[in-house]
Amino acid sequence: MARFAKRPTDEGLQRCGVDESFFREAMSRVPAAVHIVTTDGKAGLAGLTATAVTSITLEPPMMLFCVNKSSFSAARIIANGAFCINTLAVSQAPLADIFAGRTGQFLEQRFTQGEWTKLATGCPALRGAAAVFDCRLAEAKEVMTHFIMIGAAEAVDFGSEPTLTYTNRTYVTF
Amino acid sequence: MARFAKRPTDEGLQRCGVDESFFREAMSRVPAAVHIVTTDGKAGLAGLTATAVTSITLEPPMMLFCVNKSSFSAARIIANGAFCINTLAVSQAPLADIFAGRTGQFLEQRFTQGEWTKLATGCPALRGAAAVFDCRLAEAKEVMTHFIMIGAAEAVDFGSEPTLTYTNRTYVTF
Repeated sequence: MARFAKRPTDEGLQRCGVDESFFREAMSRVPAAVHIVTTDGKAGLAGLTATAVTSITLEPPMMLFCVNKSSFSAARIIANGAFCINTLAVSQAPLADIFAGRTGQFLEQRFTQGEWTKLATGCPALRGAAAVFDCRLAEAKEVMTHFIMIGAAEAVDFGSEPTLTYTNRTYVTF
Repeated sequence: MARFAKRPTDEGLQRCGVDESFFREAMSRVPAAVHIVTTDGKAGLAGLTATAVTSITLEPPMMLFCVNKSSFSAARIIANGAFCINTLAVSQAPLADIFAGRTGQFLEQRFTQGEWTKLATGCPALRGAAAVFDCRLAEAKEVMTHFIMIGAAEAVDFGSEPTLTYTNRTYVTF
């Protein structure tokens, strides 16, 4: 890994080595919507909070999200072959903490908050969400410690409430 | 593809089929930072505007972005084996239009705006950017019409100005 000393003369940028804390600091400058990714099927129910989510292609509509390989939800998504990305509306911020495991609730317990329905795949879809992308898993692409979960959207919903966004280590909205 | 009729009784969500316009509408609810992805090397200089960008892993620090396979920049990134993700600060909004091709400028012409430097890979890094992730290409993963470009960060910078963000088809900031 290249290492750079801080150069106070280099205005506007702090030049840093790539250790985890600097990388986290740089990523904190990148605003991201907050999503709950769910799954259900023969392997059972699961859900987690994710911000590493993006679209890949428009036609066909395909999405990806990144998740730690050791995640319980990742194993169930692979076994179920489907996931649903629920982009949180601002009023749904408490769900982000629940599905990030900050409240000590797991599996079915996490779904006692929020109003859940189903679209095409059978994975939980959140009513009132800013957007919903219900996907069939196309591939779990392994990259070091994580999977890039690649899915084809089979149903899409959207709402009217502003989207919950995470930036500079805090929740914001527009 | 599953198709859903609009159900006016289903409050809070408009249920839609997955055609491109509905998918675009749902994606417009997902705020994203605006990035200029650059490359340079034996194949030459190139750069494009991208919003489909996210981190994959923290240790090692790895990033991805999605780009159309037909993109001239994609070919040069693969040939050069490196790319630099420059997360725009608010004051750098004009660069987003230039690198999206809206001003009719191409290749070297695009780099006449903004102040460019180099970090580890030799790809152009933007001074004053909100964040910079200078990456060695690890893999160009083909997914239908697009590549997921996967890179390992060899240098990371960040600035202090707020990040330019795109949501509801407009530029905003926090």
